[in-house]
This record gives sequence, C-alpha cells and structure tokens, in this order.
Amino acid sequence: MNYTIFGESHGPAIGVTLTEVPAGLALDMDFIEAEMARRRPGQDGLSTPRREEDRPEILSGVFQGHTTGTPLCAVIRNGDTRSGDYSQLKACPRPSHGDYTGRMRYGGYNDYRGGGHFSGRLTAPLVFAGAVAKLLLDPKGVGVRAVISMAEGVEYPSREQLEQLVLAAKAQGDSVGGSIEGTVDGLPAGCGEPDLDRNVEGIFARHLFAVPAVKGVAFGAGFGFARMRGSQANDPFVMENGRVRTRTNHAGGINGGITNGMPVTFQAAVRPTPSIALEQDTVNLDTGEPVKLTVQGRHDPCILPRALPVIEAAAALAAWDVLNLPR
Amino acid sequence: MNYTIFGESHGPAIGVTLTEVPAGLALDMDFIEAEMARRRPGQDGLSTPRREEDRPEILSGVFQGHTTGTPLCAVIRNGDTRSGDYSQLKACPRPSHGDYTGRMRYGGYNDYRGGGHFSGRLTAPLVFAGAVAKLLLDPKGVGVRAVISMAEGVEYPSREQLEQLVLAAKAQGDSVGGSIEGTVDGLPAGCGEPDLDRNVEGIFARHLFAVPAVKGVAFGAGFGFARMRGSQANDPFVMENGRVRTRTNHAGGINGGITNGMPVTFQAAVRPTPSIALEQDTVNLDTGEPVKLTVQGRHDPCILPRALPVIEAAAALAAWDVLNLPR
Amino acid sequence: MNYTIFGESHGPAIGVTLTEVPAGLALDMDFIEAEMARRRPGQDGLSTPRREEDRPEILSGVFQGHTTGTPLCAVIRNGDTRSGDYSQLKACPRPSHGDYTGRMRYGGYNDYRGGGHFSGRLTAPLVFAGAVAKLLLDPKGVGVRAVISMAEGVEYPSREQLEQLVLAAKAQGDSVGGSIEGTVDGLPAGCGEPDLDRNVEGIFARHLFAVPAVKGVAFGAGFGFARMRGSQANDPFVMENGRVRTRTNHAGGINGGITNGMPVTFQAAVRPTPSIALEQDTVNLDTGEPVKLTVQGRHDPCILPRALPVIEAAAALAAWDVLNLPR
Amino acid sequence: MNYTIFGESHGPAIGVTLTEVPAGLALDMDFIEAEMARRRPGQDGLSTPRREEDRPEILSGVFQGHTTGTPLCAVIRNGDTRSGDYSQLKACPRPSHGDYTGRMRYGGYNDYRGGGHFSGRLTAPLVFAGAVAKLLLDPKGVGVRAVISMAEGVEYPSREQLEQLVLAAKAQGDSVGGSIEGTVDGLPAGCGEPDLDRNVEGIFARHLFAVPAVKGVAFGAGFGFARMRGSQANDPFVMENGRVRTRTNHAGGINGGITNGMPVTFQAAVRPTPSIALEQDTVNLDTGEPVKLTVQGRHDPCILPRALPVIEAAAALAAWDVLNLPR
Repeated sequence: MNYTIFGESHGPAIGVTLTEVPAGLALDMDFIEAEMARRRPGQDGLSTPRREEDRPEILSGVFQGHTTGTPLCAVIRNGDTRSGDYSQLKACPRPSHGDYTGRMRYGGYNDYRGGGHFSGRLTAPLVFAGAVAKLLLDPKGVGVRAVISMAEGVEYPSREQLEQLVLAAKAQGDSVGGSIEGTVDGLPAGCGEPDLDRNVEGIFARHLFAVPAVKGVAFGAGFGFARMRGSQANDPFVMENGRVRTRTNHAGGINGGITNGMPVTFQAAVRPTPSIALEQDTVNLDTGEPVKLTVQGRHDPCILPRALPVIEAAAALAAWDVLNLPR
Repeated sequence: MNYTIFGESHGPAIGVTLTEVPAGLALDMDFIEAEMARRRPGQDGLSTPRREEDRPEILSGVFQGHTTGTPLCAVIRNGDTRSGDYSQLKACPRPSHGDYTGRMRYGGYNDYRGGGHFSGRLTAPLVFAGAVAKLLLDPKGVGVRAVISMAEGVEYPSREQLEQLVLAAKAQGDSVGGSIEGTVDGLPAGCGEPDLDRNVEGIFARHLFAVPAVKGVAFGAGFGFARMRGSQANDPFVMENGRVRTRTNHAGGINGGITNGMPVTFQAAVRPTPSIALEQDTVNLDTGEPVKLTVQGRHDPCILPRALPVIEAAAALAAWDVLNLPR
Repeated sequence: MNYTIFGESHGPAIGVTLTEVPAGLALDMDFIEAEMARRRPGQDGLSTPRREEDRPEILSGVFQGHTTGTPLCAVIRNGDTRSGDYSQLKACPRPSHGDYTGRMRYGGYNDYRGGGHFSGRLTAPLVFAGAVAKLLLDPKGVGVRAVISMAEGVEYPSREQLEQLVLAAKAQGDSVGGSIEGTVDGLPAGCGEPDLDRNVEGIFARHLFAVPAVKGVAFGAGFGFARMRGSQANDPFVMENGRVRTRTNHAGGINGGITNGMPVTFQAAVRPTPSIALEQDTVNLDTGEPVKLTVQGRHDPCILPRALPVIEAAAALAAWDVLNLPR
Repeated sequence: MNYTIFGESHGPAIGVTLTEVPAGLALDMDFIEAEMARRRPGQDGLSTPRREEDRPEILSGVFQGHTTGTPLCAVIRNGDTRSGDYSQLKACPRPSHGDYTGRMRYGGYNDYRGGGHFSGRLTAPLVFAGAVAKLLLDPKGVGVRAVISMAEGVEYPSREQLEQLVLAAKAQGDSVGGSIEGTVDGLPAGCGEPDLDRNVEGIFARHLFAVPAVKGVAFGAGFGFARMRGSQANDPFVMENGRVRTRTNHAGGINGGITNGMPVTFQAAVRPTPSIALEQDTVNLDTGEPVKLTVQGRHDPCILPRALPVIEAAAALAAWDVLNLPR
C-alpha cells in the first residue's frame, strides 16, 4: 500500500491517495473517524484551539462500503484558516520550522501560509491512511499501539504529570519534547531481509521519519545498547507453548533486519514544537537583517498526546508493508 | 546510485553491484583499498583474528581507470574459511544473530555457515560502495566522518579507555555495545522533501539501518530532544559571512525533511556483537529441546572501530542520494 | 513526475495526484482546459453523446498561480451518469472490456457501473497530467504531437475518409480500430540507458500501454523492420549545421535505449472500442449459462480522434521522465 | 525478482545479479546451460564465428544446489576477444548501433570495444536470468515459448527458407530483420492492474524493450487491430470444461491491463543487426568529417534464431513479475 499525502494548511483541501489497498475491505468509517478524532486539536487546554472538522470525503476506491482495490482518494476540506496570521513568515523563517528549508527547496514558490505542506495539519490524512492499515492488519492478528515514554525528561508520565509540565511550559510560551514508544504485536517471524530495500528496521524508520517532529527512531533497547555488553543484550531462545520465543526482547522483535516473531518495539524521539510564543532570533531573508520574531497564531505547547495516533498510523503502514514482503 | 550486496561468508565470493555510477569518475583504487583496510579485522588484539584479503576485483563498469557509467561489479573472493566451526548452528541458533530469522525467512535454505549472508563480512562490499560514494562526493565539497560517541556507557572514549573496556569484556568472553556519531559536511540547503520517499532523515535512516548491528538512528539532538523545551531546542537563524546559518545545530542540519545547509549530524546505536564466548541458552529447532550453546570460532569483542568506515560508507551513500534528489 | 489516477466512472469524482512537479511552473489553466476539451466526448456525431464538464478543481500544490513543488491533486466531479444502463454487466461481462478481468482481479468488489475504474472517462485526468507535462516540456524546447496513422486499414485518413468509415461502422452498431503516430521533438541526445529501468523505449512503452485500448507500441520503422535488411534499416550519420544527425530516422530517435537527438517517433495500435451495439456472446458468471448480450448505453464508434490528446499526454509524461533521467 | 546485468564485451567479465529469487529453488544447471547454449553464437554458418564459452560461475545465493533467497550473482568470464578490431569505432560510430548514443550518454567514458555494454553478448546473462525465471514458473504451470513469426518479410519461415534468405544477405554483407512471436501459457486470470505501474502489457513491454534490437511490442492481434472492427476484434466469452474462456484470443490474454486466463501472446519486432559488412556513411565525431565506414569483425547476418531464447528470457522474467503482483 502506497500513500501520497497532498495539500497545504491554508489551501482548498488536504488529503491522501492510497494505492494497492486490497479489494473487499469493509471500510469502517466510524473507526476511521474515531482515529482522526484522537489527533484533532482543541480537545482540551493542552493543544491549539484551532478547530478542525477533519471529516474525510471518499472520492474513489470504495463501492457499497467496501474498497474496490483501485486507488482510494480521501479529501478533507480546509476551513477556519486565518491566513493573515502568517504573512510575516514569508521573509522571516521561524527557527527549526520548515519555512526556510521549504523556501530553499521550492524556490520560494511553496505556500508559506500556516506552514503550508509542512503544517502538522497534514498528519490528518496520515492518520486516515494509518486507520485503513489498522483495519487491514486487524484480521491478520496484528495490533499497533503507542504510549508516551518521555515528556521533558519525565519517563512514562502520568496524565497529571504531563498536564503539569505542559501547562508550565505553556505559561512561559514554550513547548516540550518527548518520546513515544510503539509496539506492534502479531507480526510473524520471517518477514524482511538484511538488505537495504526490505530491512524491517529500515521500513519502520522510513515511515516514522516521515512524521513531522520525529528526530530519532530506535528498536528494542535502542540507544540503551550503547551501555550494554553482549551477555546482557542477547535474547536467549526458549520454547513457550510449542513456539520459539526469546526470554527478553532487547532486539525489539528484529534480528538481521527480519522479524523474529516477538513484538516489534520502537522508540521515536519527538522534538518540542518549534512554534513557540517566546521571542526568537531569525533573519529577514530578503534583506539579510537580523530580526526578533514573535510567532503569532495558535500553537501546541505539547504535541505528544496528538502524536500518538500519528505514530501509530506510521507504524501501522510500516507493519502492513512488512507483512506483505515476499516470503 | 543503487547498490546490491551479494555473497555469503563461506561461499565462493562476496561483492557488490553498483548502478547509476556517473561516468568519468577516476576510480582511485588506493583510496578504496585504504577504506577497506580500515574495516579489515585482525589489525590488533581487539578484533577477530580471521584474516581477510578483501582485495576487490572490478569485473565491469571501469575502463582505462574511469567509471563507464554502466553497472560496476566488484568481487572479493572468500578464503581462510573454516566451515567446520559453524555446523552446530544449523539447528541451534545463536541468540540475537540472524540464524533463526534467516531460517524462518528462507525456509532453511540459507547458507548458515559463518552467518552466511548475515555475516559482518558482508560489510566489506558496503565499504567498497561507500568509498565510491566518497570519491563522488569529494569534488562536490561533501565530506563524511564518524567517531565513536559511546562504548559501554563511556562517552567519546579515548583510545586507551576503549582498549581497556574491550579487553576486559574479551577476557570474560563478552562483547561491548556503543554508538557512533556521524557528520556530513557540505550538503547544500534545499535537498529533500517532507514526504515519505524523499525525506532526508528517512534516506539516511534507511541506509544506516542496513548496516548490521545498528539498532537506532537519531539526528542532531536526537533522543536528547525528549528532555528539552522548544526554546532550548530551536536553532536561531543568523547571518554569517553573507550566508544563512543557525547558531546551534540541534536539528542536525535537517528541518521538515530538507537540508538546511548546516552539517547533517546523526547518532547510530550499535548493539554489542551477539557472538560471544559465554555459554548461552538457545533451543534446538529440530527437536524443540533447550540447549546450552557455546559459540566456537573467532569473534570481535568490539566492532566499534571497524564499524566506523561502515557507518561512513552508509552515510556517504545516503549523502550521494540526497545530493541527487530533484531540486 | 509520478502520477496516480483515481476514480470510477459513476463514483463521486475522478482525478489525479501528481508528485515531483517542479516548483514555480505557471499553471496555464486555459491551456490545460483546452487540452481536456480535445478529449471531451459529444463534440460531433462521431462520439458518445455523454456530456462531461471535465472542469478540474485543483485541491493542492498550486499557490498564486504557480506550482508549489508539493503534491498536486486535481479532481473532476462526476455528473450525468445513468447507473441503470449498466446493471446487467455485473454478471455478464462485455467481451474484451475490463468487466471480467476486473471481477477476477478485485474479487467482485470493483465498481462495475460504467466500467468503473476501467472507463475511458479515466483518461480525462491523464490528459490533465499530460498537459502539465507539456507545460514543463515547452520551455525545454520539447514538443509532442500525434496524428491518426490508420483507421480501419486506411493509412493517414483525411477528415472525410475518417468520418465516412466511422459513420458506416456506427450505422452497423460497430466500432473501428486504428493506429496513432506520435512524434516527440527536441529531446537531446544522450538520455536513457540500455538497461531495464531507464531504457527510453521501455519508458515510453510503459506510459503508452497505460492508455486503455493501446495494444501495440513500436518505434521508428517498428514492425516494418521485420521486412528490411540492415542496409535499408541503418540510419547513416551526417553533419548538418554543425550537429550530428542521421539521414533517415528508422530508429525513431533511439539507439541502444538512448536518445540520439533525432525526433522520437512511435506508433501505437489502438483496438476498436469493445463496446458495440451488436449482439455478442458472453456468459453469465454466476450461472455459467451462455448469454446473448446487447450493450445498452452510449458508445464511441471510433475513439481515435479523442485518443490523440490522450496518447500525447502519455508521450509527454514519458518525455518528461526521459528528460529527467540522470545524465 | 529484479536483475542487474553488468559487464562489457571486452572487459574482464559479464554477469547478472538477481535479487528476490525465492529460496529453495533447485538450480538445474543443466537446464540453464542448455538455455544459454541456444543463444551461443558459432553454432552454424548463420551466425558470428566468435566462440563463447558462456559457462556461468555462481558466486552467491546458492547453497547445496538450492537458491538461498539472498542475492544470486552469476559471472561469465570474457575470452576470445580481439580488441584491435574495434579501435576505429571510438571516433566513427557505426550507424544504428549504440556507439554514438553511448558516447553522448556517458561522456566518452564508455568502453567502446566491441560495443562494450551495448554488445549483444550482454544477452547471455539475460538468458541466465530468464532460465532461473523459467525454473520458477515451471512448477506454477506457466510455460514460455517463442517462434520466428517473420524474417525479411517471410511469415513463419521454415528452417530452409530462413537459411536461404540469411545466406543471401550474408553473401551481400547484409543482415535481415524479422519478428518473434511469444506465448506465455498458464498465467491465471486476474493478475495486473489497469494503471501505470502494474499494467501487464506495460510489464511485458518493459522487459522486452530491454532486449537489444527489439523495436516494437504488440499483444494479441497487435497492429492488426488497426484494420479491424470491434465485432471482429472482440473475443466472445464461452464456458469450456467449467472454465471461462474466450472463443478467440485477439486480446492476447489481457483486458484492461489484467490477465484474463487465456495465453498471453505477443509479437516483438526485431531490427536487422546494424553491424553489416557493407560500406556505410558516418562521421568522425572528433573532426566532424564524413567517413566511409566498413565494419571489421565478426557479425551475425541474422540474430533471429539466437534471439529466441533471449525473448523467452525477457518474457519469463515478465511472467514471473506478473505472477507475483498483489492479488
């Protein structure tokens, strides 16, 4: 299944075109919309008050409630945009956002309003695609889930801890980073290859790095391996109910680029939202002058809760790819 | 430039086929062999005593010392193999090695001798490919280098520190993990895209995860972002000698999946070599019985020094891909 | 530039998602709509009276009249559909149409109404994509044009000859086949490779065979080579105004899979429209019984005039691919 | 299964790297060598007297007589080369050969000796790859065969007719063109898609146009459709022994880009060998002067018999691709 996400934050619409969706999938729109609702902002005091409807319209690839097997295009119309908020950003790029690189890549023709194609809003169609992948994975016994494994240095924060540190950052016009832990259960042993194109770790990483704000991806013990010896790191094989298992799962379910039948586990580092209310240094690209920038508009002090369904979507798309590798 | 690595540790030969090598590159074999020598084992007491010649023979794609632009195949003959060492491994997979997943993936037809296609020896042709990439990058002003950023928990170990902890592990029949920091200088701003297929982080990750033993990849501050606020993480823009730069480089040279002109920096987590001399638990896959396994043969207590040219090779191949993206 | 065409004849919409469109192209909508008008049916007595508006709505990838470089999605809403016409076809496939193979491929989940995704209507977004390619090719000096080289055996028919034979076929409830000759001027010498993935003939063929009804593709003298000797077939090199040319162009501008600087010329065989009014034999797939089928609905007795812009679109997309191969 | 052919006619070796070969195939080397023998020149008076051994050496991907599932590299050493024959060709390209386009594509760095990578000798590894594909197809009930359907205008020539016209051409220092008809039996209905990437006609065409000298590819009635009406062209559905069949097979087993269960039939136009002994006009690319060229060396007056296994190889590789499309 390939997906192409299109759209700009303040253009007519955003959406996704999916190819190679198997025919005959009952497209459970209630599930899809519930997944999209998990990502929707403005649900509590922790995220941007921009309201999005995010109701996807299916233009193709579905007939009588089932996928047809031909390309599926889903579109979400944009509304509630305030283009005026962003006019300053054309010349003065926000630090660590895509404004500058977008201008360099696209020769100044990119739609800079609200981040354009770089906007976090573009993760809505990604969640749509991931929800389709989840519907495909479910009957195969494959499940995907994610939790916040760190927020501003706090490991596995409780809801209260998270709220506390996010509100503290918000009060200061700041944002917080963290990490998300993902688990994919049910992938059979023997999917993947050690080589470049079909390495399971490479496939997951490629999908996860396509999520804005993800700056690191690690499997199993991940960067913890850097503090280990082989005798600690190795996962001994054992028989369990007639099946080969490993006693530990430091490898995160992958040896030599191939699934070993244990859950695939990963960590994704999520950088703090670059859009903060604090004054920042930037330059005016037209004049070369230094500029003190104060970003107007509505921003998330912490995207971690909303990023969970996005990371799950990327992982589900990766898991579907992995499950369909030649075996 | 695409590469396909072929071969098994104890088969007739290993090698690599490169396509899309630009025509007219003067193939500096002294440089290539020097790169390969950096990876070669048996150079000191820290690595496996297996001797490899690793002299690549160029079968195609080079004429009168220059690349022809047509596919380049380089072959390294295998020698000094002791197949008898590994016969036990067919039924009893070494923990955390590719023995079990290879058997599951390839239905038992994989060449299990010495790890077969999963052997670390297969990184020799990867270094060859990376050396070609370095030769291509050099006239474009792009350089790639890597250092050991951690070994068994010690940050940026000195040569003595490294030797000490490796010999300690070796004495106990154990191995040590670590991490490698890579830096790619000279990539211009504006390469890449936010989307799945051409995201610069995704491209680097895909290449790096194809290196055996790499279990994590992170850019710039990487997993350090999980402890940061946006105000710390953001990289302010400044003018420097008439060029746009960032004061810090927490983003590792990449915003929104696109290079920003700063050095691309990354960390790669490298797991401890799974082949250790200590007795380990495994199972006999034919009988389902538990087995106490003691791996015979010659093993590396620490692959970090030898992994440096391999990581550089993967990064150089990624950098060449990035430089050739449509702009 | 990659394109994905989506939609079904009687679904909500059809359209196309284009990726890798260079940023900064002034999107001349008058030109694009003029190209689409050339394909539109119901323009004279020769084609189906179904009226289509075919006004594309651009959902993304365009800002202030120029392409942004991010994915461009264009949508054409469906209207004027009469689903009742086609209900019989679910069980009784029309000979030589996609009804049967669609059912076999998609397990009966494909939208069978009006041919669904197999409908000739899906060539409208292809013409859109081709028009974008033409706009990109024009400033590079590359032009694409197509003429009818045969209709029901008549070579290069005049407008009157064509009208005569089409009306004769129409009167009998029949349709006519033919061939279309394409010419691509302005491609420089040295694009392409002899090998599988970047062979210029292979690239053109892949695009042309994606046009419904195309059953053959040949370059230069094409199948005429089967009647020739080498001395007739070879194209001697000559200097012309300081440039290397060939005296003849039997090779159709391609030697060894690489452009030689002469016009790329090709023939595409176009089968007669399978939807004819005459009674035909088919089977009821549910019962296995033979059925005499009379296809209701509105059909083209000859698609050749409307196929010209479609063939040009496919050739323009191929030419753009060829021009962007590594050189 | 992907293949990369490497090598130059007068370099150290030619060969092929195959990826995605399924594990566990018993690699019948007798069959493979028999296939390669069919392509080998010098078997009778009709082809070039250059002797080739063409004994492939398997470097990887085979263990204990079976494929391992990891990349398979096969190498054929070059011998019996007379580089002196070709020295003139560097500056003075042979008409309709790859000399000129190779120079333009590769900036003069291509190995021009004996055509280098463009040499017909490079079809030997293609036949190797095709033989592997045939071994994979055989247990699936898929068979591939090819016959000469035309030689210098004579349809389906007998052995005597062929010999007569080839010897006549040879006597005059000339060569003859023709066409080859291929048939692929046993592909099930429902493979493929109407769209660009997985259209069965496109897949076959891509493989067939990668064969040097192929200038046209058509399916079923092919260019004969240009003389037909729909009522003649359509293939009525019938039940035959409980299976859906078509009474005729003008479509060549493909409707809407998808197999319909009938044999896939195609025609490939094969241009006359461009290397002829007759004097030809060319230019000296270094001086721009016109040159009368007489090609020395050993040439085939008719490659049709030797092309049969090559066309079969390309078709077998295509058929394997088609069989492995998602269904």
